[in-house]
Amino acid sequence: MERITIIDIAKMCGVGVTTVSRAINNHPDISEDTKAMVMKVIKENHYVPNNSARNLKRSASKTIAVLIKGITNPFFNHMIKVFEQEIQRKKYSFILQRVDENQDEIEVAIELEKEKRLKGIVFLGGYFSHSKEKLSQLTVPFVLSTIGMTSEFDLNDYSSVSVDDFKESYKMTDYLINQGHAKIALITASMDDASIGKLRYEGYKKALEDHGLAINEQLIWAMKEDIESYTMENGYTVTKELLESQEEFTAIFAISDNLAVGACKAIFEAGKRVPEDYSVAGFDGLDISFYYNPSLTTIRQPVVEIAEETIKILFDLIHKKITHAHKVFPADLVVRESTKSIL
Amino acid sequence: MERITIIDIAKMCGVGVTTVSRAINNHPDISEDTKAMVMKVIKENHYVPNNSARNLKRSASKTIAVLIKGITNPFFNHMIKVFEQEIQRKKYSFILQRVDENQDEIEVAIELEKEKRLKGIVFLGGYFSHSKEKLSQLTVPFVLSTIGMTSEFDLNDYSSVSVDDFKESYKMTDYLINQGHAKIALITASMDDASIGKLRYEGYKKALEDHGLAINEQLIWAMKEDIESYTMENGYTVTKELLESQEEFTAIFAISDNLAVGACKAIFEAGKRVPEDYSVAGFDGLDISFYYNPSLTTIRQPVVEIAEETIKILFDLIHKKITHAHKVFPADLVVRESTKSIL
Repeated sequence: MERITIIDIAKMCGVGVTTVSRAINNHPDISEDTKAMVMKVIKENHYVPNNSARNLKRSASKTIAVLIKGITNPFFNHMIKVFEQEIQRKKYSFILQRVDENQDEIEVAIELEKEKRLKGIVFLGGYFSHSKEKLSQLTVPFVLSTIGMTSEFDLNDYSSVSVDDFKESYKMTDYLINQGHAKIALITASMDDASIGKLRYEGYKKALEDHGLAINEQLIWAMKEDIESYTMENGYTVTKELLESQEEFTAIFAISDNLAVGACKAIFEAGKRVPEDYSVAGFDGLDISFYYNPSLTTIRQPVVEIAEETIKILFDLIHKKITHAHKVFPADLVVRESTKSIL
Repeated sequence: MERITIIDIAKMCGVGVTTVSRAINNHPDISEDTKAMVMKVIKENHYVPNNSARNLKRSASKTIAVLIKGITNPFFNHMIKVFEQEIQRKKYSFILQRVDENQDEIEVAIELEKEKRLKGIVFLGGYFSHSKEKLSQLTVPFVLSTIGMTSEFDLNDYSSVSVDDFKESYKMTDYLINQGHAKIALITASMDDASIGKLRYEGYKKALEDHGLAINEQLIWAMKEDIESYTMENGYTVTKELLESQEEFTAIFAISDNLAVGACKAIFEAGKRVPEDYSVAGFDGLDISFYYNPSLTTIRQPVVEIAEETIKILFDLIHKKITHAHKVFPADLVVRESTKSIL
């Protein structure tokens, strides 16, 4: 078979070569219908575009990068899909860039900016402790999405979308206390982690204080540093130690659903039941919190709304409609089978 | 503070500028210790390398791309980590590229080859139905990892690492039959999907035949096409319909653990128990299969070994030690709480 050219494709489609090129390169000036038709003909005829030309076009195209810390965290699954949809709807292309736990996301972003001529960046997950000077090296608009921020940041220096981790953690702890639980174990991040873990820990503490309950440091457990953070295995290992510590408690609040699942497993293995012997609560509202047995009481983050708002703010920044924005979404306390009143 | 230069960093480290540059650019000719020391000093002093120079170096560096279909599938989590470790150990850099369900991975790969001057490619997940002509457009070595292959492929045209999906599915079905189950519902991929779903379906069918059991088409259920495939939600929705169909069965074999979790939830909601009323078996050996309640009987794929072997074969191809290789790993039947004998 002779090699098919772009001219052949244009003829088959009854359109010009420019239109075919626009379809291939995801150019904004082509209708969705025409593009779909062209791509169908391309696919059916196994046409392979000339790549050098294509890359030239592409590198000049408009690209948004999403930099993600903790790509294996199921919390981000739905968000990634929304990002992709919203970015494509704006006729931009989308790059998903994984950032390692120990990697500097600003460094990665600066490099990507150059390589890909980015128009905007979303930082997703992890926590942020970069200086104003460092941030100012980013030359394109960016939004921090579901990232824990340390308080020394000037709100004018960046944009963000998230829930109020302090307040939502307070809400869950307050709920457990109102169910009669006074001895609530907390599974959280290590104390030198200035992240959502810290904010959720502070919310827990404040709720206990407001109810006049003492903080028992023996009930505050950090995730294991030698096990991947926010995993079922980490919650399981920590809870096994908690149970062995002989410290009394009636409830566990784990700052993620995955940790809560691991906690339940450790309780089952100790021959105890959830919630009859111990109430267990999570955070995030992952799918597994619904499908687990017992289903988990949790704080459900509005992930789709957070993702949509992130992109909306990013494009407002790109189009210079705003200089910065901070949006905080409320999350829902979802009461399910894993917690019970002991009053 | 005056801007720190690469010369300052070199002085602080007591090494030459070239060494600092090598540390930054992940060059092979530098010891791990020196590199770690240099990177520590760079981090402590908030030094930002000159990016243009750095990018030039980088684009000439040796890069492996991993193209993944179904990035949100927890099955790939462990594999991604192994890929990263092994590729870094070889002093190559690593790009993780997400491919959409409907995207043509060969197209994506061809584009990446040019942009990044790749040295090798791993295709992870999904299924492969590209022609020999299409495959031959890839100019660098590649390995298909845990990908279902249709039979019309010539083994000389590619390399692959996976389990034997047919055989492992047979193993699970055979086990269930030996526990006294004759009416085994199957939750699998749609029949026009020439993927692992098809292979696992064939294994199920063969096991029934070998035991002289009739195939009841009413017990074979495809995942819903309007719900993301291989999710808990899909298994849940299908099982609800299965239960409502009034078709008799004593066990469900779901071709992934996520589907099996959803199946359990649907059974619980119908007021039934696992395994007392229905046995439920999964496939993959995901973390959740251990942490779920009841823990799930499953086929555990040796994901770490598969990932390691994938990289080993890829580098053998790169170094022209081999022209192609196919490695099939055995998987383990792991019997847990979710299945029981009804003999």
